[in-house]
Amino acid sequence: MPGMEKNKKRKIINDPVYGFIPVGSPVLFDLVEHPYFQRLRRIRQLGLTYLVYPGANHTRFQHSLGAAYLMGETLQSLRGKGVAVSPEEELAAKAAILLHDIGHGPFSHALEETIIRELSHEQLSQLFMQQLNEETGGMLDDAIRIFGGQYPRKFLNQLISGQLDMDRLDYLQRDSYFTGVSEGVIGLERIIKMLDVRDDELVVEIKGIYSIEKFVLARRMMYWQVYFHKTVVAAEQLLLKILGRAHQLAQAGEKLFTTPALHYFLYGEYPAQDPALLSPRQRKELLDRFALLDDNDIIASAKVWSGSGDPVLADLCRRLVNRKLFHVEIQNRPFPEEKVEEYRKKMMRDTGLSAGEVASFVFTNTISNYAYSTADHQIRILGKDGSVKDITEVSEIMDEQVISRIVEKHILCYPKEYLSNS
Amino acid sequence: MPGMEKNKKRKIINDPVYGFIPVGSPVLFDLVEHPYFQRLRRIRQLGLTYLVYPGANHTRFQHSLGAAYLMGETLQSLRGKGVAVSPEEELAAKAAILLHDIGHGPFSHALEETIIRELSHEQLSQLFMQQLNEETGGMLDDAIRIFGGQYPRKFLNQLISGQLDMDRLDYLQRDSYFTGVSEGVIGLERIIKMLDVRDDELVVEIKGIYSIEKFVLARRMMYWQVYFHKTVVAAEQLLLKILGRAHQLAQAGEKLFTTPALHYFLYGEYPAQDPALLSPRQRKELLDRFALLDDNDIIASAKVWSGSGDPVLADLCRRLVNRKLFHVEIQNRPFPEEKVEEYRKKMMRDTGLSAGEVASFVFTNTISNYAYSTADHQIRILGKDGSVKDITEVSEIMDEQVISRIVEKHILCYPKEYLSNS
Amino acid sequence: MPGMEKNKKRKIINDPVYGFIPVGSPVLFDLVEHPYFQRLRRIRQLGLTYLVYPGANHTRFQHSLGAAYLMGETLQSLRGKGVAVSPEEELAAKAAILLHDIGHGPFSHALEETIIRELSHEQLSQLFMQQLNEETGGMLDDAIRIFGGQYPRKFLNQLISGQLDMDRLDYLQRDSYFTGVSEGVIGLERIIKMLDVRDDELVVEIKGIYSIEKFVLARRMMYWQVYFHKTVVAAEQLLLKILGRAHQLAQAGEKLFTTPALHYFLYGEYPAQDPALLSPRQRKELLDRFALLDDNDIIASAKVWSGSGDPVLADLCRRLVNRKLFHVEIQNRPFPEEKVEEYRKKMMRDTGLSAGEVASFVFTNTISNYAYSTADHQIRILGKDGSVKDITEVSEIMDEQVISRIVEKHILCYPKEYLSNS
Amino acid sequence: MPGMEKNKKRKIINDPVYGFIPVGSPVLFDLVEHPYFQRLRRIRQLGLTYLVYPGANHTRFQHSLGAAYLMGETLQSLRGKGVAVSPEEELAAKAAILLHDIGHGPFSHALEETIIRELSHEQLSQLFMQQLNEETGGMLDDAIRIFGGQYPRKFLNQLISGQLDMDRLDYLQRDSYFTGVSEGVIGLERIIKMLDVRDDELVVEIKGIYSIEKFVLARRMMYWQVYFHKTVVAAEQLLLKILGRAHQLAQAGEKLFTTPALHYFLYGEYPAQDPALLSPRQRKELLDRFALLDDNDIIASAKVWSGSGDPVLADLCRRLVNRKLFHVEIQNRPFPEEKVEEYRKKMMRDTGLSAGEVASFVFTNTISNYAYSTADHQIRILGKDGSVKDITEVSEIMDEQVISRIVEKHILCYPKEYLSNS
Repeated sequence: MPGMEKNKKRKIINDPVYGFIPVGSPVLFDLVEHPYFQRLRRIRQLGLTYLVYPGANHTRFQHSLGAAYLMGETLQSLRGKGVAVSPEEELAAKAAILLHDIGHGPFSHALEETIIRELSHEQLSQLFMQQLNEETGGMLDDAIRIFGGQYPRKFLNQLISGQLDMDRLDYLQRDSYFTGVSEGVIGLERIIKMLDVRDDELVVEIKGIYSIEKFVLARRMMYWQVYFHKTVVAAEQLLLKILGRAHQLAQAGEKLFTTPALHYFLYGEYPAQDPALLSPRQRKELLDRFALLDDNDIIASAKVWSGSGDPVLADLCRRLVNRKLFHVEIQNRPFPEEKVEEYRKKMMRDTGLSAGEVASFVFTNTISNYAYSTADHQIRILGKDGSVKDITEVSEIMDEQVISRIVEKHILCYPKEYLSNS
Repeated sequence: MPGMEKNKKRKIINDPVYGFIPVGSPVLFDLVEHPYFQRLRRIRQLGLTYLVYPGANHTRFQHSLGAAYLMGETLQSLRGKGVAVSPEEELAAKAAILLHDIGHGPFSHALEETIIRELSHEQLSQLFMQQLNEETGGMLDDAIRIFGGQYPRKFLNQLISGQLDMDRLDYLQRDSYFTGVSEGVIGLERIIKMLDVRDDELVVEIKGIYSIEKFVLARRMMYWQVYFHKTVVAAEQLLLKILGRAHQLAQAGEKLFTTPALHYFLYGEYPAQDPALLSPRQRKELLDRFALLDDNDIIASAKVWSGSGDPVLADLCRRLVNRKLFHVEIQNRPFPEEKVEEYRKKMMRDTGLSAGEVASFVFTNTISNYAYSTADHQIRILGKDGSVKDITEVSEIMDEQVISRIVEKHILCYPKEYLSNS
Repeated sequence: MPGMEKNKKRKIINDPVYGFIPVGSPVLFDLVEHPYFQRLRRIRQLGLTYLVYPGANHTRFQHSLGAAYLMGETLQSLRGKGVAVSPEEELAAKAAILLHDIGHGPFSHALEETIIRELSHEQLSQLFMQQLNEETGGMLDDAIRIFGGQYPRKFLNQLISGQLDMDRLDYLQRDSYFTGVSEGVIGLERIIKMLDVRDDELVVEIKGIYSIEKFVLARRMMYWQVYFHKTVVAAEQLLLKILGRAHQLAQAGEKLFTTPALHYFLYGEYPAQDPALLSPRQRKELLDRFALLDDNDIIASAKVWSGSGDPVLADLCRRLVNRKLFHVEIQNRPFPEEKVEEYRKKMMRDTGLSAGEVASFVFTNTISNYAYSTADHQIRILGKDGSVKDITEVSEIMDEQVISRIVEKHILCYPKEYLSNS
Repeated sequence: MPGMEKNKKRKIINDPVYGFIPVGSPVLFDLVEHPYFQRLRRIRQLGLTYLVYPGANHTRFQHSLGAAYLMGETLQSLRGKGVAVSPEEELAAKAAILLHDIGHGPFSHALEETIIRELSHEQLSQLFMQQLNEETGGMLDDAIRIFGGQYPRKFLNQLISGQLDMDRLDYLQRDSYFTGVSEGVIGLERIIKMLDVRDDELVVEIKGIYSIEKFVLARRMMYWQVYFHKTVVAAEQLLLKILGRAHQLAQAGEKLFTTPALHYFLYGEYPAQDPALLSPRQRKELLDRFALLDDNDIIASAKVWSGSGDPVLADLCRRLVNRKLFHVEIQNRPFPEEKVEEYRKKMMRDTGLSAGEVASFVFTNTISNYAYSTADHQIRILGKDGSVKDITEVSEIMDEQVISRIVEKHILCYPKEYLSNS
């Protein structure tokens, strides 16, 4: 019985952040059940952050569902204010936000900088969406247009990718919940209630301005307290060095143990050409392979590598596995070359490693918070008189200068046991 | 400077359940930093439960720290009531609870029933504690005695393994937090405040009786709603069948892809003799090997096996990876043999699998909640007159019959697509 | 513009328990704005409980709004399961639960036992509803029928007054929130999701049975830990004695300071006849007078009486104002007459008060928890096979005997300073 | 047995914000039990805010206890960092914060501007402390010195009255909890952990800077969203007009119904001279009288006055009792005189009231947020190099200009039904 079947394609998911998340339509149900989406259960939202905040094991799966839930809440609130949103648009917007992270691999940032340099997660997201769209007979046409900003009603795209999108609203709340850093808690319900639409663009009612200010601040705080936490950065840099070293060895013909899924990418067996030029069969194979790659492959391989014959790779991996992370110094100015050189030389003396090898242990980098840049996406405030202004004109604290300042910090990493002064 | 160094051996861990957890002593600090303990970061507290409750990715690492935190709170409260607890006893009790799960492997239940049948997690815990005790020069002597129930002051053992131990108090609260099942929330602070000691045994002040009743109920509810949730059971049974099949193939000489850590156990390369007879070197090797085995090895291997040449293993693994779990029927009586046979025959016809192979897909089992058995551990209630009675004598609802009833349920698992009636 | 006006009759109320509570219809809006309803802002939900749990200052106003909110959530969930509920029925059900406490005076229990003995809060609720119905031109006809159990669809009445009604669901959650007694927290969202309707009666899906068991337990716990907390009982008994004494003095012609609103009732100036026989004008006057009576009148008067010429009244009031409450002994058996007599005599000797006067200070009483009696209202469980059974047949712990046992306790109150043994 | 007695002078108070608050010393116990302190149970922390946020019925009693609790937590954390704090200092600091609001009357702001103009709550606090100090034989000497800033260790005073004092930390958290405005939630535990002392002044570790920024923002948000919420201001202005009118009538010899406690102040029967010149007997009488004045007196009297013969007082009171508050316009510039005049004239025409009388209904005022002024109290940040700088030098968003800007807003109030344009 088809009605029956349709009825079965509903699901309620228990989410500790919002309580119950209904997956109320067959199309969304099928997306959630798809192996490409289920794989997000195996990819942590915050990468190695769990090494600092032990609760941060939540996944991209939860986040994507959560953001889709908020989309539903927001569209319902907008309708209550007289904004027409058709059922098709609602479905498309939910599908788009559900899939917004579908192209992410495990520890994406590190992976993309080392092993999968030819394919960004944005490109992969597009490929996944095309594939899923074809599999569902074009059910995702509008979702893809909304996602890509081609859909005429701009606010739908802004809800997916803007200063106040569902992605941010969910991850701030969720990352706070799982890390235990209460500073990220935002007035979610209130922000959603304050959203409105004017000329098909998203606006915020002026009486919600304090909540928005707090939201911007909360985000900034999560950046420095969690996402760019010194030790989190240390862990990510370590993984970067591990994957970089493994890639280098692989390219030099070294045979490293890996899971097959990782092998395919590590040894460059995937089509390196422009993804737009892939044949349907090539695309599907690439995606099926990629869909098998997740956190488990990276961690499982790193554990094996900790007994590798290459002393650099082995040492780096032991640090990761046993959580003996680099020490990180952080400051606003670049570190002087001489200091770095001095540290490297000392380590060379102590360990007998070469200059090239030591560069995996003693190095500098920059981290940069583009977080609240207003470059392209403004927050528009709707005054009581109906006028729409940018938040920097209205807010007492969010002036242009403060809000758009890009903060760049410099880090210096090294193994504590050789080099720490203290 | 040693004092300096000692001072550095302190840590505050951000825990979303309790806020901040201090690790305040160098001995505990060293235990937490040890690779044997750090590995618990890679073992989920609730196994495959995340396939049903997506938030349930929390680890044995967090749980162990949480239980040690509660131990500190409880001992502090007991001291406030005049119970003498020496600093050494406090340290030993905290170390004992910190290590109470140290012998757990990934998905322990499934693993122990299939691959590592000769070594229980209890035995492994003992080996780990001995090893760590030797490495720390006997610092854990008392912890081991408390853990094993040989320490004269019985209540310390009861705080680790009893009806109201720190293990339970933490996991109920924590599992509730991460699954989002609010029914497990207990009046933690109140329960701790109600604990006291009489004749070196743990008692609860009578005015805390309602909180204790609720605690027993909350535990029971978590059993049926989470730990024995139909779909959680389905996932665990599936993994059991996967590991069983893999073990069978390995024993038949089939070469399966595995991570090296899993290979060691799957192919029975570990010393199968009585662990008490292991030489120190053998013990250390066993533990070092075991310490490299975690959730990642199981999941990474299962993903590879989903492309295995063995159709049974491949099908089972695809179900796990893509979350196409068995359908589960659950009832109080055993399922009739004929029904099982009928299902098996139907599947044999549909798939061409043999009778032996089909047994991995259609099977029965029992689950049993020994949870609130009073067999050996009572909850003692301290009356206002100083008398101590068992809770079943005092409580209006917790009578012997209700509380000690062991509930056994029967399950029947099968692949929905072949056999579901609906 | 009437449409405009109508549109303005909407409101969102910030509630710390549920976030935002919308008052979405003009009829409900008018009810909430009515002085009869606004007065509930000045009547605490839990009477004098704030003397024990300082947070318990929440009012009947909040509770009534909260219960109406839950009604909306429940009806929406039921509709999702195919239960037809017309917009008129929704409005009526919300209005009925909104007004279910409208007849409560300040500290109702004490007031009704002493000063307003001729009028119960149930009778007053009916009078208020009739009055409001007439003022709104019969908009409340159905609400009154639902409230009174005369509406054909029985489940609507069960949602207002049954084992699982919105009243209980809200007060457990709310009283927990404001007292800080976490044992009352229930799985609200889950319970609501488990409700369904069969043959126009409310049922609970079997898979919700653990949540229901916990709900019954949570309620029981709140009874003993909050509602019947020894010191709460002591405070209520004290107020009972105060109002009783004031009433006695008033009847003897003594002129006591009171606020005019209290004076009207204390000096029996209201029509004592059967409320059904009141003329419309009499009814309105009675209600207008009653609507001016709230917590402030009682407390303000008691403060003045603490300087009264009557030594009994003055002493009792000083105890209330300065929170020097009676000492309470509580036990399962009645207290022996001789003990009470002995205490009274000792107090007579010490204070010079007469036997009659001392009875206001040394006395016994009983408290009785009819809370989870199943006498008339069952909890019906809907099995997977569609059968409906009483919870006592299905639950493993809620057997008839346990659930319907009425617990009666005996209390003995006296001023600690004269009589305490300790 | 004195030890016994001492032991009895302990108490654990159930607080929904922090769980359990222990009152652990006999001196503090006696303060809490004192009628002067118990009266704070009858004074709402946020005055009439409950007319907008129905949950905001929490009292100064709870707040004072909460602030004292935080003081204990803070001092314990400071000791952990090596800051010496003697038991006597701890007691004094806790007593000082416990009593910091002791001089507040009901709806203090309105009361002080109209009826009790000669005595500020600061002066009354001092009188209360002196009185309590004499009653306890000088136990509060140090508390008074800390409170007054005369105690040599400055940070103790800063914990009571500074940018980051326990008063603010508690009220932000508590007001958030009871209003349900989540924007006030701060990272309390983290802020406390970041506090340290240098040169006897309070400093914040630099790594806590984001939490501090969020704290300043959260406070600012609570100002505009709660404390200066338009409708809250409307309610406060209404009460101001009511008390002003009553005072005016009283001075003109009109006999108004009041409770005796209010009568004493309304009819100016208290000694109007410099409080420092009061004799001990006069002081005690003044305090005893004042201690009987609380929210109940004001509300009970206003209810009676709603039937007053004076049409202005009666109308104003009916608005308060039935929550028909003024409409408020709010803007950054002053309102033009002509607009106000026009409104007044229109109301005079419509109601027949005189120009003087109409001024109680149509009027302007200013509200001003001195909240985060840095005038005298800085927030000092402790760098990693040990240097101490003001937050405005270190923070990226808290520059001098932003932080010290005093925001003044102008309001225009009037009865909506006569004058609203809409």
